[in-house]
Amino acid sequence: MRLLFLGDVVGRSGRNVVVDQLPALRERWKLDCVVINGENAAGGFGITEAICDDLLSAGADAVTLGNHSFDQREALVFIERQTRLIRPANYPPGTPGRGATVVEARNGARVLVVNAMGRLYIDPLDDPFSAVERELAACPLGEVCDAVLIDMHAEATSEKLAMAHFVDGRATLVVGTHTHVPTADHRILPGGTAYLSDAGMCGDYDSILGMAKEEPIRRFLQKTPGARMEPANGPGALAGIAVEVCDKTGHALDVAPIRLGPHLSEARPHFWE
Amino acid sequence: MRLLFLGDVVGRSGRNVVVDQLPALRERWKLDCVVINGENAAGGFGITEAICDDLLSAGADAVTLGNHSFDQREALVFIERQTRLIRPANYPPGTPGRGATVVEARNGARVLVVNAMGRLYIDPLDDPFSAVERELAACPLGEVCDAVLIDMHAEATSEKLAMAHFVDGRATLVVGTHTHVPTADHRILPGGTAYLSDAGMCGDYDSILGMAKEEPIRRFLQKTPGARMEPANGPGALAGIAVEVCDKTGHALDVAPIRLGPHLSEARPHFWE
Amino acid sequence: MRLLFLGDVVGRSGRNVVVDQLPALRERWKLDCVVINGENAAGGFGITEAICDDLLSAGADAVTLGNHSFDQREALVFIERQTRLIRPANYPPGTPGRGATVVEARNGARVLVVNAMGRLYIDPLDDPFSAVERELAACPLGEVCDAVLIDMHAEATSEKLAMAHFVDGRATLVVGTHTHVPTADHRILPGGTAYLSDAGMCGDYDSILGMAKEEPIRRFLQKTPGARMEPANGPGALAGIAVEVCDKTGHALDVAPIRLGPHLSEARPHFWE
Amino acid sequence: MRLLFLGDVVGRSGRNVVVDQLPALRERWKLDCVVINGENAAGGFGITEAICDDLLSAGADAVTLGNHSFDQREALVFIERQTRLIRPANYPPGTPGRGATVVEARNGARVLVVNAMGRLYIDPLDDPFSAVERELAACPLGEVCDAVLIDMHAEATSEKLAMAHFVDGRATLVVGTHTHVPTADHRILPGGTAYLSDAGMCGDYDSILGMAKEEPIRRFLQKTPGARMEPANGPGALAGIAVEVCDKTGHALDVAPIRLGPHLSEARPHFWE
Ligand SMILES: [Fe+2]
Ligand SMILES: [Fe+2]
Ligand SMILES: [Fe+2]
Ligand SMILES: [Fe+2]
Ligand SMILES: [Fe+2]
Ligand SMILES: [Fe+2]
Ligand SMILES: [Fe+2]
Ligand SMILES: [Fe+2]
Repeated sequence: MRLLFLGDVVGRSGRNVVVDQLPALRERWKLDCVVINGENAAGGFGITEAICDDLLSAGADAVTLGNHSFDQREALVFIERQTRLIRPANYPPGTPGRGATVVEARNGARVLVVNAMGRLYIDPLDDPFSAVERELAACPLGEVCDAVLIDMHAEATSEKLAMAHFVDGRATLVVGTHTHVPTADHRILPGGTAYLSDAGMCGDYDSILGMAKEEPIRRFLQKTPGARMEPANGPGALAGIAVEVCDKTGHALDVAPIRLGPHLSEARPHFWE
Repeated sequence: MRLLFLGDVVGRSGRNVVVDQLPALRERWKLDCVVINGENAAGGFGITEAICDDLLSAGADAVTLGNHSFDQREALVFIERQTRLIRPANYPPGTPGRGATVVEARNGARVLVVNAMGRLYIDPLDDPFSAVERELAACPLGEVCDAVLIDMHAEATSEKLAMAHFVDGRATLVVGTHTHVPTADHRILPGGTAYLSDAGMCGDYDSILGMAKEEPIRRFLQKTPGARMEPANGPGALAGIAVEVCDKTGHALDVAPIRLGPHLSEARPHFWE
Repeated sequence: MRLLFLGDVVGRSGRNVVVDQLPALRERWKLDCVVINGENAAGGFGITEAICDDLLSAGADAVTLGNHSFDQREALVFIERQTRLIRPANYPPGTPGRGATVVEARNGARVLVVNAMGRLYIDPLDDPFSAVERELAACPLGEVCDAVLIDMHAEATSEKLAMAHFVDGRATLVVGTHTHVPTADHRILPGGTAYLSDAGMCGDYDSILGMAKEEPIRRFLQKTPGARMEPANGPGALAGIAVEVCDKTGHALDVAPIRLGPHLSEARPHFWE
Repeated sequence: MRLLFLGDVVGRSGRNVVVDQLPALRERWKLDCVVINGENAAGGFGITEAICDDLLSAGADAVTLGNHSFDQREALVFIERQTRLIRPANYPPGTPGRGATVVEARNGARVLVVNAMGRLYIDPLDDPFSAVERELAACPLGEVCDAVLIDMHAEATSEKLAMAHFVDGRATLVVGTHTHVPTADHRILPGGTAYLSDAGMCGDYDSILGMAKEEPIRRFLQKTPGARMEPANGPGALAGIAVEVCDKTGHALDVAPIRLGPHLSEARPHFWE
């Protein structure tokens, strides 16, 4: 089974590159399951229903979120009916939407997708480790589902690594999001879980995290309010991770980073090319 | 001119891999200048004089630090006489040591090495942007020196990227440290400055940021004090960045990540091999 | 019913003033129930069994904790048998000890004592609001118990005030701890809950939060490691809050701050004098 | 000489109570100098020129700010011509306005007013201690000026106390702002400097820090965006500190908290009544 995850889609540049390229990639690589983080898809802040639909139509089986989940207020409403859009599982009880979903991959496999948010240097939610534990217990790999993808939306590398080792063997992939910078530490952990500290973003890399450079730089130099933050609108690049999954165990057989587009050194999954 | 930077050396595993491999790499790649971040070289916390000497003897021309600069108290003393060891330039006036140094590369070039520390999600020091501005003004690229390397020790990717764009064209390389995870976003910015968000660490990657996994994982699950944090002691890997520098302008001509050793996908500078 | 709460006991100065003065105050004011925050009682960091016993012997009915709960490792053990020592209720499940206890006051009343920890600018634990909700549901005021005291250990005034309004009418007293500075905003909220943003500390006020001044000041000026933090050892003062409780409803009838000793303007409960 | 400081004015309730009561207090207590923190005067966020004029007309000699200095963008402009409005001195060089000003008190005395912002749990600016040191050096008490008032806008009590001890003897008053809760630790330090950790706010105390309660409470319970934060609009109270100043040394002779209005226990300077 072939699993693809793409990092935080930022603004129009990010949406365009996904919509333009994902259908062909899905075909070319015969992808069985695609998950995309969409927390910055709407102008850099949150996601709308129309944009979520675009990502799903482009080939995503599920869309994950993060600290920007509800920046667009309509997400509080449509997330209730859109079961393929999930927000961190460790939001307080009663938060609209859900923290995990099971999608059926093209090969018929059942894939549990979990979203969790770290607590270091980011809004304090409830314990992401026990939230993930709960989701795994409700739908264990190899019993109720055939693959488990965990999007660990977090700032601190320590927390992402800890999550990965915590679930090693019980998940197919733990991939970090939120920093918008792709890391180069993809590997398969001893228990069989693929890991990447951060998927990077889908968007214009001639930017500060996908946003036009001038205003964020200015805010570091001066400490006065300025212009609104706007997404950079140059051509976008795709970034994420590819996992070849064992159909029998749900563990990772092979893992490779994906980096396609301007400003990034190209990376492709040789095992699918 | 050939410039190599290696990320945070963590504990004995990190020191061993540097001492074992750097001399040969220096030879093989005909390196003109090597800089290493040593803030975690002594058991994960700070640096001692003996360890600093080991890194310099192994082939480093300068050693940089970070938020752990003075975890080993002796560094407060020997940093005053060891001019090739620098700590962040935005420490308060009066802090022992200096925030920048000029080293003579093997090819005779003068290389300004600057260390700065971010302020997001890390101890609040003075403005790193104006500190770097000051160091660049005192020793401008192409006038007083032939190359400029800036180690931006920071947690937030936004702050590292902002620093890079801030000095683009005025530095040869801006490389981030501190997260201990190598990123995959190496590039040359429009003005000629090479950039990598994080160099990664030199140490045992079967770990949480170079430390034995059990205790940091336990601290995320429980919130009680436990054992001391100890460096992981498996075989170490090297991580960093290679820059081919224009002798005339001091700008980057080529850039490549370095990843050599267990748990990392290998990366070498094809332009030197 | 007469309820007294004393803020964070810091070191020997804090313990001495409690042990010296509480027995007489208990007599003089005919106190029915006394609760003390003891998170800094052992040299400024945590609490030992011997010290906990001293505070209980001096007249405390219960002792609460905070972010320093387990700085003394022995507390992880003896808190299991010492049911009158409680730690924040929003520690993760499995943490030694408990987050609430019911004590029998001298007048025979049953007093629920709850400890919770905020999440702003302090270690991220689980949601303190739902933790308190749970404790109140398990032992509702006016049904299962006759009074409810909540020690909200937190940095941010917003979070303390929010907790107070959240439980207004369902608790007798919400009192903040942790900042070690007594506030002057004692009042009875519309629903009948007494409130004070911070009780202040019991300790030597010629200090920085109970610790000898030199080292903390130095750490603000320089950013280098220095001496250990040691408690200031001048004569201590008591700080806290007095509540006259309605025996029928468990609501507050009268509230007054307590400030007795050097460096503080004296405050006593006129309604008991 | 008689010095009065009032804490953060929040919204219309805060402005009204200042405008209504300050003129009479100024008369009654024969005040020589009045300083007010106005960072939340405009709807809770920042200050406008009209509002600044209102505070000055009501009897303020100077107005200080904090982390909300420039929430109203017009403040970036009019602060340049309004020399009696100051913002924290440790903003980066080039920030509009100034961090200190000298006002002439009614008795002819020259009063240096300094504003500084802490760095713990708040936006990271440059070192407030060296900024204050600079301002004191430029206008030393007893030489160039007759009194020095420092508004230390900070979250952490440790940082406020450290500042007070740092300048003890070199300032007339160090008063904290920002938490919007009046503290009860007013005292005169050994060197002669009056101190209060927080002045509290001028505004409606039936609120969360001056803002209508519902939305901030909801944000602690749920982690979803909601309504805008609006100031509470019930009757406001005044909070601050009164200092009787030695005309000869500029040190404090007497100090008392001021708390006048709903929800606060009344406090007046007995030495002026
Ligand atoms: Fe994002
Ligand atoms: Fe995010
Ligand atoms: Fe490090
Ligand atoms: Fe570091
Ligand atoms: Fe404490
Ligand atoms: Fe505390
Ligand atoms: Fe304020
Ligand atoms: Fe403020």
